[in-house]
Amino acid sequence: MRVITTIKEMQIEILKKKAEYKSVGFVPTMGFLHEGHLTLINKARQENDVVVLSIFVNPLQFGPSEDFTTYPRDFERDRALAESEKVDYLFYPAVKEMYPHALSNTVIVQERTDVLCGRSRPGHFDGVATVLTKLFNIVMPTRAYFGKKDAQQVAVVDGLVKDFNFPIQIIPVDIVREEDGLAKSSRNVNLLPEERLQAAVLYRSLKAAEAAILEGERSPAKIKNSIHQTIAAESNAFVDYIEILSYPELKTLEELNGTIIIALAVKFTNVRLIDNLILEL
Amino acid sequence: MRVITTIKEMQIEILKKKAEYKSVGFVPTMGFLHEGHLTLINKARQENDVVVLSIFVNPLQFGPSEDFTTYPRDFERDRALAESEKVDYLFYPAVKEMYPHALSNTVIVQERTDVLCGRSRPGHFDGVATVLTKLFNIVMPTRAYFGKKDAQQVAVVDGLVKDFNFPIQIIPVDIVREEDGLAKSSRNVNLLPEERLQAAVLYRSLKAAEAAILEGERSPAKIKNSIHQTIAAESNAFVDYIEILSYPELKTLEELNGTIIIALAVKFTNVRLIDNLILEL
Repeated sequence: MRVITTIKEMQIEILKKKAEYKSVGFVPTMGFLHEGHLTLINKARQENDVVVLSIFVNPLQFGPSEDFTTYPRDFERDRALAESEKVDYLFYPAVKEMYPHALSNTVIVQERTDVLCGRSRPGHFDGVATVLTKLFNIVMPTRAYFGKKDAQQVAVVDGLVKDFNFPIQIIPVDIVREEDGLAKSSRNVNLLPEERLQAAVLYRSLKAAEAAILEGERSPAKIKNSIHQTIAAESNAFVDYIEILSYPELKTLEELNGTIIIALAVKFTNVRLIDNLILEL
Repeated sequence: MRVITTIKEMQIEILKKKAEYKSVGFVPTMGFLHEGHLTLINKARQENDVVVLSIFVNPLQFGPSEDFTTYPRDFERDRALAESEKVDYLFYPAVKEMYPHALSNTVIVQERTDVLCGRSRPGHFDGVATVLTKLFNIVMPTRAYFGKKDAQQVAVVDGLVKDFNFPIQIIPVDIVREEDGLAKSSRNVNLLPEERLQAAVLYRSLKAAEAAILEGERSPAKIKNSIHQTIAAESNAFVDYIEILSYPELKTLEELNGTIIIALAVKFTNVRLIDNLILEL
């Protein structure tokens, strides 16, 4: 595995590989790798000749009061994990390499952003779309892999690639969970010990909602209400949002039908967690 | 020469060529080709294995009161010219192919846009940057060719490619002029016959300014004033702007030094013309 820190070197390497007819699988991350990421890398490894993993905590997608500085980082551990997962190139640029000065050109995303996490994170998806536009031009992947845990991100990236005609296939990958159902996340380390136990409530409440829907419940309001009560029973868990929307359009629904997403965000002392379930009715 | 109208087919063709180690030269245009364009195509032909010419009158870069509908079009003539200039692929998409629906993702350009043409055309360069982001992803050129006549566009494209890390070399090409000095432009056909004669005043006033500078004049105000008087002497010519700025930063100058651009826009009955001179002091 080669660690590359400059944009120019990354582009030169990739252009060489592409001239050899190699397909390139790309897993963009903010590091502090967990099994969710490793699943993405594994899938990329199976489907491509060359695998590029990027680790870049992107300041542009964090709001001023968000956790950019406290976002967990551990490069040496990430490097060892990437190596053991047979990554070919680990792209690890400094902030100054990606943003040598304030950008004059940025991507603005107008749809699928005023719901879910986008509502409480203004500008977040502009930052995501801008850094991905850069990373896609740097890594020039054949396929790019994203976890379904951030389902809104998958929907936004899908729109970005279609709107800008990137010659890239987006591969959404299923959520990887702990034994108690908690979705794997780099941020889980910021849960207090008792909160780690309570955090299983996110998935538990989603599964209870799924069961109610399978038994015929079709009212979004009733389902949301019942999820809310389940979560409120945990002392440190505070609901940020619970939403039920069409997927991937992310439009509000009066009654449930078609492909829907039940998505939620819950705040604990030092961390805010998200989870979701996509259902075909 | 092959005419291609779909994005997908264009991308497939280019990926084939790139897999054969071919370099790709790209000349993006809005059609109604003149010698200025042919110079760009010629340069692309000399420097690349494959030459792609695109013809697309991009609605996104026209303001609501601008000349999108009257912008001159003559595809059959353009096709014949492209063929005779040994273009390999003529990419000629319909508006519906490029914009099947309103884009959710657009590029916003914040610098180098509030001067020259950008000042009187709000959103113009956002539209240029957005369509070029699409075209660059569709054509995946090694080199892209732009005329220096639209010097502000060259400066903005330069910023776009750097900010978004497109693996593309931007090649600015000198202005091609008529015998009386008028810069070649698709819009020149919209000049009334007597205006065609008057239009030589743009270049004449620029050359007079250059002469004054070579003789030691360093006051932007005095030079602009003298250009203004020269143009005002023509009955149908109305100055839209005359600006003297640093290049390519496009910043206002108190006194002339370094690389500067003298740029102007002049309105006639049915058309607005631009021209410029870049000088190293």
